[in-house]
Amino acid sequence: MDLEKLFKPKSIAVVGVSKKNPLSPGRIVLLKNEFEMDVKVYGIYPNGGEVEGVALYERLDKLPEIPDLLVIAVGPDDTLGYIQNCADLGIPASVIIGGGFAEVGGEGIKRQKKLEEIAFDNDIAVLGPNCLGVYAPPTVDTIFLPTERITRPPKGSVALISQSGGFLVDQFFVKFAERNIGVSTAVSIGNRSVVDESMLLEYFSKVDKETSNIAFYLEGFKEGKAKKFTQLAKESDDTVIVFYGGKTKEGKIATKSHTASLAGNYNIIYNALRQNYVIQPHSERELLTCLKVYDVLSHRRNPFGKNVVTFGNVVIVSGSGGHGVIASDMLRKYGLNAVQLTEKEKDELKSLTSPTAREIASFNNPIDLTGSVLDTDIENVVKFLSDIERIECIILLILPYPPNISFQVGRRIANVVLTKRKPLVCFMPYIPKYSLIIDSLELANIPVFHSIKETVQAVSALKERTRIRNIKQGNVFWEQRS
Amino acid sequence: MDLEKLFKPKSIAVVGVSKKNPLSPGRIVLLKNEFEMDVKVYGIYPNGGEVEGVALYERLDKLPEIPDLLVIAVGPDDTLGYIQNCADLGIPASVIIGGGFAEVGGEGIKRQKKLEEIAFDNDIAVLGPNCLGVYAPPTVDTIFLPTERITRPPKGSVALISQSGGFLVDQFFVKFAERNIGVSTAVSIGNRSVVDESMLLEYFSKVDKETSNIAFYLEGFKEGKAKKFTQLAKESDDTVIVFYGGKTKEGKIATKSHTASLAGNYNIIYNALRQNYVIQPHSERELLTCLKVYDVLSHRRNPFGKNVVTFGNVVIVSGSGGHGVIASDMLRKYGLNAVQLTEKEKDELKSLTSPTAREIASFNNPIDLTGSVLDTDIENVVKFLSDIERIECIILLILPYPPNISFQVGRRIANVVLTKRKPLVCFMPYIPKYSLIIDSLELANIPVFHSIKETVQAVSALKERTRIRNIKQGNVFWEQRS
Repeated sequence: MDLEKLFKPKSIAVVGVSKKNPLSPGRIVLLKNEFEMDVKVYGIYPNGGEVEGVALYERLDKLPEIPDLLVIAVGPDDTLGYIQNCADLGIPASVIIGGGFAEVGGEGIKRQKKLEEIAFDNDIAVLGPNCLGVYAPPTVDTIFLPTERITRPPKGSVALISQSGGFLVDQFFVKFAERNIGVSTAVSIGNRSVVDESMLLEYFSKVDKETSNIAFYLEGFKEGKAKKFTQLAKESDDTVIVFYGGKTKEGKIATKSHTASLAGNYNIIYNALRQNYVIQPHSERELLTCLKVYDVLSHRRNPFGKNVVTFGNVVIVSGSGGHGVIASDMLRKYGLNAVQLTEKEKDELKSLTSPTAREIASFNNPIDLTGSVLDTDIENVVKFLSDIERIECIILLILPYPPNISFQVGRRIANVVLTKRKPLVCFMPYIPKYSLIIDSLELANIPVFHSIKETVQAVSALKERTRIRNIKQGNVFWEQRS
Repeated sequence: MDLEKLFKPKSIAVVGVSKKNPLSPGRIVLLKNEFEMDVKVYGIYPNGGEVEGVALYERLDKLPEIPDLLVIAVGPDDTLGYIQNCADLGIPASVIIGGGFAEVGGEGIKRQKKLEEIAFDNDIAVLGPNCLGVYAPPTVDTIFLPTERITRPPKGSVALISQSGGFLVDQFFVKFAERNIGVSTAVSIGNRSVVDESMLLEYFSKVDKETSNIAFYLEGFKEGKAKKFTQLAKESDDTVIVFYGGKTKEGKIATKSHTASLAGNYNIIYNALRQNYVIQPHSERELLTCLKVYDVLSHRRNPFGKNVVTFGNVVIVSGSGGHGVIASDMLRKYGLNAVQLTEKEKDELKSLTSPTAREIASFNNPIDLTGSVLDTDIENVVKFLSDIERIECIILLILPYPPNISFQVGRRIANVVLTKRKPLVCFMPYIPKYSLIIDSLELANIPVFHSIKETVQAVSALKERTRIRNIKQGNVFWEQRS
């Protein structure tokens, strides 16, 4: 099956366009692609005509070309007819929005079997049924919610595959936009009757060049395909992340109603995924933290150079003693180690700091530069620490409230990082008035987080990714050390 | 000591005003109070004159009145002289901003002893040294950071006491503003040489009427006063919350440099606080979640009525199956129980739902109304569930993306809650375009959260508060049940 036709079609057709209801899914998809996306789109309507200025065609076989993708937004029985049309006309891919298949039981199960037969026999890449489909900017968008209702994430390196459409547009899209995490392609797989999570993992690993991180929300694996999935994850050069719903008894009851997934024993799944180098965040927020830091440090220019480091040995630099304490309290939980500074290093750090800050600052790890800190103090301290080889990552907590911190501070830090190439992850409050500082850092691809916890989590996530990459690349000593 | 003079002074004087440096702490405090706060403020300068149009007085004894509060922003030796002035003139309260006391060791320890002698002998309520002081809107603000640099939280029921100034203005103020959590008074206690956490706990519990939640960031208790603190917490009618820094080995090293606090054995402290009914969130975000839900449901009108419920038996209503799964997965960890619905109840729920949603919705707990949900479906379902006595709290996950959800949905839910008085906590994405919905809910004092986890945490926090309140009010059966 040619999944590329799902995500990079040159032309699409939409069936199920209503002339009466401007909010019908088919009509939303037609107009969205016509006016917002880079694809040729054809609407189908029994007696032709037009809707909001867009011409409609009577039947698929009356189109001026065979489209790459057919979006089907009609009832279940008609859907089967259209899939047969795909087979007859040679349309290689389809997104089925509507339900009425396996998720309703009884007749629905039979319908879905029929659907699978046609699709597999004719090599049609069918997504769904019962899904939102695909958001693959700039080409195609079958998410049948009005554009003005949803929040679109920026373009980036993360392929998103979700068994829940709601999770995709809310937990992923909204929070990706907030955190500036970029998406290559987003896929809502619905009943995954034909195209399933394993096929998508294979496609994004081996075919799609825009993707370097593949993230899943799953409530279980397609029957008989868990092994295939873990094998593909193990072989993938990309970073594979799975967030699993249905871990607990209560969650399993919920997944059974939702996707009819048998979530299985979570411990077994967890261990199987872990053994195959799949990263599994523990919470929604940890998931977002991983994806942010992997996205920033992947498809874009990596400011930290190519040195193989574990990220595990860290030093904390803070403008507030309390922040240093909170960050330190989290290190061990996240598998990080506070590097001990020697007395000589502490003396040198002190000598590099301005007279006012020097007297009240503390040069242990965490280094507390206090509210009397100047831009140049941060710059000089980060520069000095960058040259200490046993420090693998600097956790920098910037508080821009004291009046001596200027809007230049971000650029100064960025310059040091871009010169020294020492990994550095930042905490900065996301307040619009400080966006000049945040932008200076993010433009240099330095990951910036809004909470102390996320900052520590991010370093831990980098450590885990490096561990996995090293094992995959055959640096066996890693496996022994970790 | 009269702590009220610290927080509700009629007049204040400021020493340490620089004519040359517009960013000097004393000058910032002088001008901030002159132009932004409701207090009479006098600046002191050796040869008088003026700064930015505000007249300066030569000495404290030349002021037209004895001020209630003296803010001292000068070096440590001069500070002692000014505290002696307070004693001589009868100034009842002082905020000492500068450092150079116990935190620097040696001479500083002697200075702090001297300071304590004068203060205790003369009943001067001294805050600090080495602190940001007080933010007590609308009266006084000694936080010497420029107003335009910091973010001020709204007015509300939470008294904040922090051993770290940075934690106060960043982790509390910024995130309180984001979440619309209200502050009655905020206090940075610095070295807490005279006024300490126990005195503040007593004041906010017994004297201050605006406060009903008292939250602390502490890195240890003042020597010999831990017992006093726990006793006061046990007796307090307010909700007492402690977030503790220095829990781990790494954190303890950090607190030693920061506040010279001996953080002690965290397990012992944790148990002592728990036994005395202090709420102890596990993370920064859980802390904020508690404070939000306690603030919304305290000083303002409580929309849920006065029924004593545990909040422990919940039902989840969602517009997305995935969201229902994620919420369900968290219930047990947070001590909540999913109420089982009977077949009869499920049938009734189904009959109350619109034809399109009904066919694909699921009426187990979690109830998944799907993306086909209408405003009236949510309204009818919430109304029906409100009448089921064994349901103690409804967790409502609203996804406003489907086109049939209108901006009326918030008002509809609010009306049901205000009529039925059933506790209900909401998840809604905080997106500016949906603020019309969020506002409808928040104006009715329904707590709204931006993540599924926070929503579940909030219900758990309400359960814990109810448990503690019941014990304190002598409902002994609670102690046995929990």
